[in-house]
Amino acid sequence: MTDISPLASPFPDLPPISGVRIAVSRAGYKAWDRADLTYVALDAGTVVAGVTTQSKCPSPEVEWCRAALLLGEARALVVNAGNSNAFTGNRGRAAVEAIAARVAGSVGCKPSGVFVASTGVIGVPLPIDKAEAGIDAALAAPEASWQEAAAAISTTDTFPKGAVTTAIVGGKTVTLAGIIKGSGMIAPDMATMLGFVFTDAAIAPGLLQRMLDEANAETFSCITVDGDTSTSDTVLAFATGRAGNAALAHEDDAGADAFQAALTDLCRQLAQLVVRDGEGARKFITVTVEGAETDRSAHRIALSIANSPLVKTAIAGEDANWGRVVMAVGKAGEPAERDKLAIRFGATQVAENGLAVEGYDEAPVAAHLKGDEVEIGVDLGLGDGRATVWTCDLTHGYISINADYRS
Amino acid sequence: MTDISPLASPFPDLPPISGVRIAVSRAGYKAWDRADLTYVALDAGTVVAGVTTQSKCPSPEVEWCRAALLLGEARALVVNAGNSNAFTGNRGRAAVEAIAARVAGSVGCKPSGVFVASTGVIGVPLPIDKAEAGIDAALAAPEASWQEAAAAISTTDTFPKGAVTTAIVGGKTVTLAGIIKGSGMIAPDMATMLGFVFTDAAIAPGLLQRMLDEANAETFSCITVDGDTSTSDTVLAFATGRAGNAALAHEDDAGADAFQAALTDLCRQLAQLVVRDGEGARKFITVTVEGAETDRSAHRIALSIANSPLVKTAIAGEDANWGRVVMAVGKAGEPAERDKLAIRFGATQVAENGLAVEGYDEAPVAAHLKGDEVEIGVDLGLGDGRATVWTCDLTHGYISINADYRS
Repeated sequence: MTDISPLASPFPDLPPISGVRIAVSRAGYKAWDRADLTYVALDAGTVVAGVTTQSKCPSPEVEWCRAALLLGEARALVVNAGNSNAFTGNRGRAAVEAIAARVAGSVGCKPSGVFVASTGVIGVPLPIDKAEAGIDAALAAPEASWQEAAAAISTTDTFPKGAVTTAIVGGKTVTLAGIIKGSGMIAPDMATMLGFVFTDAAIAPGLLQRMLDEANAETFSCITVDGDTSTSDTVLAFATGRAGNAALAHEDDAGADAFQAALTDLCRQLAQLVVRDGEGARKFITVTVEGAETDRSAHRIALSIANSPLVKTAIAGEDANWGRVVMAVGKAGEPAERDKLAIRFGATQVAENGLAVEGYDEAPVAAHLKGDEVEIGVDLGLGDGRATVWTCDLTHGYISINADYRS
Repeated sequence: MTDISPLASPFPDLPPISGVRIAVSRAGYKAWDRADLTYVALDAGTVVAGVTTQSKCPSPEVEWCRAALLLGEARALVVNAGNSNAFTGNRGRAAVEAIAARVAGSVGCKPSGVFVASTGVIGVPLPIDKAEAGIDAALAAPEASWQEAAAAISTTDTFPKGAVTTAIVGGKTVTLAGIIKGSGMIAPDMATMLGFVFTDAAIAPGLLQRMLDEANAETFSCITVDGDTSTSDTVLAFATGRAGNAALAHEDDAGADAFQAALTDLCRQLAQLVVRDGEGARKFITVTVEGAETDRSAHRIALSIANSPLVKTAIAGEDANWGRVVMAVGKAGEPAERDKLAIRFGATQVAENGLAVEGYDEAPVAAHLKGDEVEIGVDLGLGDGRATVWTCDLTHGYISINADYRS
């Protein structure tokens, strides 16, 4: 068992969300002594939005959710941990269909109202008997806490991850709560890992989808642990409508901006928790790029820095090796002019106009790098494009976890 | 000091190349007790071709070589090890100009006939006084061996790297010999690292350039250690014309095919040596992708696999975790159909038609993974596109080398 990440955050105090009921059970997908099936019952009228992996080899769960999202209605969520069911052909698809049918029969809804997500080893069909027994046990189980659910959806995660926020919509306070799992195989430019957001707000499913897309672009798509992309990445947002607000239907409705801000804030909290549990992580790194030709270009350069093994090992070694940042800017393939480039670590400018700052003093940089929150700032001096991404350092811990993990 | 790579090859017996004279000296770019300046004198009439990094932040040496390559004539090469001189502004440019002027004055050629390459730390201007003293010492030094030169151009390399081959051109045997350095900050899609090829063949510089481009695309652009791209990558090919063959001028000249084949073979040997010295490498990995829509698509998918930290750590752990190969195919962003995908390790098919092979026996795969040469084969089942790339595993050694390397 891996030690808890030194960057771990305590699990916050998450309130109940009206219309959401959680249970967990032990399906026994792996030989472990813990809950590994999470069941969430959602009141009638719950709408749903989602973003899923851009992998060309998605799991059957991802394909199922994509189809079900077109209808926009949800009555239940089942999350399996320990087996991703990806790359398992017809047997994998059959397992998802069996889960949806079992739950739909119990709830009295269409199978398309049942959302399914699985995480764990690729290539082993999810055992239908274990899934069905786990569902039956969860249906009969007492209500579980958010923290229990966050633990039950985890795999290599070292701590359970949750976040909460609120917004005022049409004079009513709506609550947004979320749980997430993810530690390795984390890369951006797609919905990353398994994340679930629940709110009591009333909101049209199309608007919820657009707002989730926007939040995703600024949060889940801005994190990376290892540049590897899961076949199962899924983020779902469920809105039960129980808060009593006048339902949001358009971006310009009163309260829509507040809800978007709250949703983005929640997603950012959740995304950053994944980085804080990055496999082997000892440092939380914020990479900010500004002065790029466009925001998109800034985003790509920031990711080139955040995904560079040489930058990540330098931070692990608390080494102010800004030359590696130059390297990562240079390899991004985006517009950059060497002689306009400026780089800082924390608040200290280390390079400007394509060379080291005159009389550069490494002492404050060395002090900054000793902390567990490191900032790398790059100014390209070309335009107004900017982006921020979050990553972690690359340590012996990452190698230990991944060279020993058995398929 | 790092131990010699377990994948190291002994330095081959390289013959002299007529028209090429080598010397080494101690410029003292770092506090080490070894030769770190290599000087190669080339007879009048030597032509040159080259490929350089695609980094947007190239070193002044790279810019110098690019300009000089337009003229196609070479009389000398100077290689500095321990300081890349990259990202050093006007002072870096002045150092390159001073080196070229010093050598040109001695040789009696134009400065543009002097090629300069430097490798090492980024961001520290190359000290002109040390360079000039090193050049003077090299000019007065006895002739050095290929192996001494290969050692003198090294930085974090754990063994000197050279290769040799021959071709029959117009009834004459021509010889091609090369040396190379590189171990980390190795990524494809550009000329990678510092590599120098010398031949006594007579060949027009334009043809030599086209042939080097073609060889590069199949060799240096097909290796990766860590996906990071140097600001200084340079491969230069020098042809002295002393073999006495009728000069090659066109692709359809007699012997041109043989020379192209020999050049590509030499470059492949050199490229693979870099992978064999990949930082921390314990396994040499060949990734072959076939059945892609195009060769280019196959190349990108192969690189996605070869650059995946999760694939590389799985190989380090001798774990037949083919799910991570699926993941890397899926994230490449290239056309792929999950249910047509087939994967093999060594000669053993592990997955076909989007799921594990019926009755798959892990024993021969486990045996294959215990060796130090690992093959991963992917068939996409879509078309005729294919590509092969070479990489190494990702181990604790990589972290140790790069988290401790001081800028």
